[in-house]
Amino acid sequence: MKKTMRCILLSCALPVWGLMASTAAAKDFVLTDTEKGIKLGDWSITSAQLKAQVKTPFSVSNKVLHGGKQEGSEVITISSGDFVIKLSPSRGMGILSVTGKGLRLGWDSPVDEVVNPAFVNLESRGGSGWLDGFNEMMVRCGFEWTGHAVVADGMTYTLHGRAGNTPASKVIVGIEERAPYAISVKGLIKENTFKKSKLETWAELRYVPGSATFTVHDAVTNKGDYRQDFQIIYHSNFGAPLLEEGAKFHAPIKEISPFNDYAVQGIDDWQTYLGPTRDFDEMVFNVIPFADENKQTLALLTNKAGDRGVSIGFDITQLPVLSLWKNTDTLKQGYVTGLEPGTSFAYPVTIAREQGRVRTLEPGQSANFDLEYRLLPDRAAVDGSLKRIAAIQEQGPLQVNKTPMTRK
Amino acid sequence: MKKTMRCILLSCALPVWGLMASTAAAKDFVLTDTEKGIKLGDWSITSAQLKAQVKTPFSVSNKVLHGGKQEGSEVITISSGDFVIKLSPSRGMGILSVTGKGLRLGWDSPVDEVVNPAFVNLESRGGSGWLDGFNEMMVRCGFEWTGHAVVADGMTYTLHGRAGNTPASKVIVGIEERAPYAISVKGLIKENTFKKSKLETWAELRYVPGSATFTVHDAVTNKGDYRQDFQIIYHSNFGAPLLEEGAKFHAPIKEISPFNDYAVQGIDDWQTYLGPTRDFDEMVFNVIPFADENKQTLALLTNKAGDRGVSIGFDITQLPVLSLWKNTDTLKQGYVTGLEPGTSFAYPVTIAREQGRVRTLEPGQSANFDLEYRLLPDRAAVDGSLKRIAAIQEQGPLQVNKTPMTRK
Amino acid sequence: MKKTMRCILLSCALPVWGLMASTAAAKDFVLTDTEKGIKLGDWSITSAQLKAQVKTPFSVSNKVLHGGKQEGSEVITISSGDFVIKLSPSRGMGILSVTGKGLRLGWDSPVDEVVNPAFVNLESRGGSGWLDGFNEMMVRCGFEWTGHAVVADGMTYTLHGRAGNTPASKVIVGIEERAPYAISVKGLIKENTFKKSKLETWAELRYVPGSATFTVHDAVTNKGDYRQDFQIIYHSNFGAPLLEEGAKFHAPIKEISPFNDYAVQGIDDWQTYLGPTRDFDEMVFNVIPFADENKQTLALLTNKAGDRGVSIGFDITQLPVLSLWKNTDTLKQGYVTGLEPGTSFAYPVTIAREQGRVRTLEPGQSANFDLEYRLLPDRAAVDGSLKRIAAIQEQGPLQVNKTPMTRK
Repeated sequence: MKKTMRCILLSCALPVWGLMASTAAAKDFVLTDTEKGIKLGDWSITSAQLKAQVKTPFSVSNKVLHGGKQEGSEVITISSGDFVIKLSPSRGMGILSVTGKGLRLGWDSPVDEVVNPAFVNLESRGGSGWLDGFNEMMVRCGFEWTGHAVVADGMTYTLHGRAGNTPASKVIVGIEERAPYAISVKGLIKENTFKKSKLETWAELRYVPGSATFTVHDAVTNKGDYRQDFQIIYHSNFGAPLLEEGAKFHAPIKEISPFNDYAVQGIDDWQTYLGPTRDFDEMVFNVIPFADENKQTLALLTNKAGDRGVSIGFDITQLPVLSLWKNTDTLKQGYVTGLEPGTSFAYPVTIAREQGRVRTLEPGQSANFDLEYRLLPDRAAVDGSLKRIAAIQEQGPLQVNKTPMTRK
Repeated sequence: MKKTMRCILLSCALPVWGLMASTAAAKDFVLTDTEKGIKLGDWSITSAQLKAQVKTPFSVSNKVLHGGKQEGSEVITISSGDFVIKLSPSRGMGILSVTGKGLRLGWDSPVDEVVNPAFVNLESRGGSGWLDGFNEMMVRCGFEWTGHAVVADGMTYTLHGRAGNTPASKVIVGIEERAPYAISVKGLIKENTFKKSKLETWAELRYVPGSATFTVHDAVTNKGDYRQDFQIIYHSNFGAPLLEEGAKFHAPIKEISPFNDYAVQGIDDWQTYLGPTRDFDEMVFNVIPFADENKQTLALLTNKAGDRGVSIGFDITQLPVLSLWKNTDTLKQGYVTGLEPGTSFAYPVTIAREQGRVRTLEPGQSANFDLEYRLLPDRAAVDGSLKRIAAIQEQGPLQVNKTPMTRK
Repeated sequence: MKKTMRCILLSCALPVWGLMASTAAAKDFVLTDTEKGIKLGDWSITSAQLKAQVKTPFSVSNKVLHGGKQEGSEVITISSGDFVIKLSPSRGMGILSVTGKGLRLGWDSPVDEVVNPAFVNLESRGGSGWLDGFNEMMVRCGFEWTGHAVVADGMTYTLHGRAGNTPASKVIVGIEERAPYAISVKGLIKENTFKKSKLETWAELRYVPGSATFTVHDAVTNKGDYRQDFQIIYHSNFGAPLLEEGAKFHAPIKEISPFNDYAVQGIDDWQTYLGPTRDFDEMVFNVIPFADENKQTLALLTNKAGDRGVSIGFDITQLPVLSLWKNTDTLKQGYVTGLEPGTSFAYPVTIAREQGRVRTLEPGQSANFDLEYRLLPDRAAVDGSLKRIAAIQEQGPLQVNKTPMTRK
């Protein structure tokens, strides 16, 4: 009874996608399939074509981009009224931007093209070539490894892994055949290397036209015969206008600490953001969240007034930690914050190993990751999320450690 | 007399390709030509279109693949009845698979796409990025260098060189205009780098419809003005069902030794294969073969029963050594053996230099490589090859060295 | 009065492009625009289609190349009578070759395809992967850095930077709507990397049909919020037949010195060229030129007879130094000389920093580079340039330093 009530009050997201997966039959459109030799390229479908009974028309389209380093990159656009989601199968199904409900999720990176991975050299810049393509609202940092670049085991573990620069081998758009005509876009990301890895991830985004949330559902499977290490950080990035001076980060926090020595000086102000600040560069804070009895938690970014925001709901059994990335540097340098639920922090894989935060998959085993991104267009929506955070925080006090966990 | 007899008995291959090259006029189809601006893309020709007088129809086709990391890769398929050869101009004319006569040549790599070299970073994984694309039945490891990755001369000599990840600049399909309508597919692989290399290789595959053999004929030419080092390993790979527990390797062997310390423990069992074996990884044995008076030799893989097999015939003046690669690990890890005739073993180029196994080409000079792959569908065919091996072995005893040649 | 006279006598180039930019309205053809989703691919326009009133017809075309490592590369060709300019938007707007007036600008590199940067790994060969694509008559070496490869700051500064292997994000062909129907081709080269660089360069080539000159006008802008280092070398390369034994280099020189110890032995013969010379490799000389009162200078290459040549005019406030690259090795190795005006010499960025030759751009600031390439088809034209050089040289003596500036 109490639990049901809270779900209603706090807009518990899980039933939504549970519903989607089971209720209505969906019509599938295969955009890409390496096995069947399918690649549709430019393509679109509309609610009118589907004879969908909707007040607000919706559409899903795919477009092949051209020119510069985005030659050949593909972008899928889901539109429903003023709600627009853009994601790129070419870049590991990363979400480029979401707009709607008067909000804009995403940011302005100096990288302003949807860079085809064929033009990205992850080994460049000492293993930080990933920076040549980084501009997503959400990029998967994984799965074979994640975190800062490091040379170990005779190789360079390049910054944030390879999934984000791996083009999808299969791309399927599914649209339910009756109301609410839930839309799903899923892509298969293969991290397959002889003797090294056979991690295959079905990366899915779901959206119910008219709603203020979209969800991500990934299943990474070890298709190999050996136990396989893996890590994932859902690098979710928000810039102006939501991010502004006085904007706030909220989460039910068990423990927060600075990522490194530079972040020590910002630990007291972990909750609030600066405006665009010259020479700020980036401060990262390691967050271990509390969760409710269903292991669900959420992280929240609000504007200064507290009447707009975005929340990310996730499961701490799936994603036990969160990196809070404050990159409140100048607008052109990239004014952005990352709320990054992950299996591990952003340390190099060598440190993640020491911390016991590298996970493993047995042969054939899958790990699932379910995240809900909720656009909070007004004070009531923001307050709803704040109440839920407060309720979870009742489990214990927030502990602020002022020393980086890597400093012995 | 005796020699002719043996040729008949042991199905001496050389006359076949000698015949092909000289007898009938051939119709050429230029699929790709960088100089003339030709790239046909999807294309096919059939025996019917050619009005060829054949009982069993044949066809040759080219297909452009899409999706994932195989976007843009091309695959040429030669079909004649149940005999199907697939090769990829995008991947240095590598042979992907051959099926026919109830046999399957090839293997199941965790890499299950025909990876476009644009998505391969040979420098990655400490110079072993080649593993991101490796799944061929035969891949050319060369020509500028071959072998394991090593840092020397201020650069990384990446694993197995660059030819296998070089798209062909010219691709020509030739079909003879009368019986037996021999088919040839040849591609030009350019390893051209200012100040470093101007090695151009015409890589050719020939097949006579209806036959159980196909042949490879490469001519690598130093188009530069300076003496040029080169190496080549014909990395020829066979998996299940031919490879199985009790399968056997045969060759007329002068000397065999373990590649490294790990292989020492397997040297006594060099001739037989294990079934898929967890944690086996790979054992490599260095083989120096005997040859007949024409410098021809052959290596043979048979199943346990000895009623199916595949042989590779080659010339020891062209390819004096053979690497026997036993990768009898689990099925999903890649259960495969490589019979790899080469100018050198799989050691890094630095060691190959010490061993005197790096060859040179004078300006304008070419080196030719001719290999015959023969499918052996029954015991008689297998026994024929075994007899030929036994005859060559009569030249001397098989010497087993239990110490790796790199251990002083 | 005197100044005007000299301009007439010495064919002062600046008014030409000043004129072009201001006089006639131009019709623009957008070939590529990443923002607008435009990519025309194969395209052409002719003077006839434009109803241009010209004696000698002209045309501009774009062609997408196929096959080998040039798959997808584009080449723009400007033709007017026997004058043909080829440049490649795919390779940073580099100029491939220019022919006309009986002259040929360009050279024969072992790299004989217009290599798509997707197939170039700048990190390879110890940071010299740039050599895999180098065959241009003029390639921009910059802008984030230039010079020889060096490991510093935890990364490899790869040989000659990234611009030359960056495909243009926008490409616009402009043709004036009345005589002289001046043609311009400009492309936008973005060197954008999160946290590292936001250098955007409009790279332009202009040609007036019928004339013997073409000009280059680049504007590199720091679109970021922080001061940004940059460097540029206009690596301009000329081979046979203009380059020959006894060919000569001329410039008004304040100081010339050998680049390194190897070049010391060639310093006395800096002005003359050898014929194709086995084992010559390359000698580089560092030149600091004098300029006229408008800061204009020029460098000149003439054949032995002095009746053919090419000059490059540039502004020493923009490009204060020149690298004279003598690569008079064999024809197939690449018989070529580079006359390379630059902000710095070809030393690694670490040395350029010590020399104070790394420039900076404040946020929003642009740097302009204007070069005039003039084909000199006869003795009179050559002598005109020689006179101009002699006039500028009157400012002071030529100082030959026989010790490399890097030797303390």
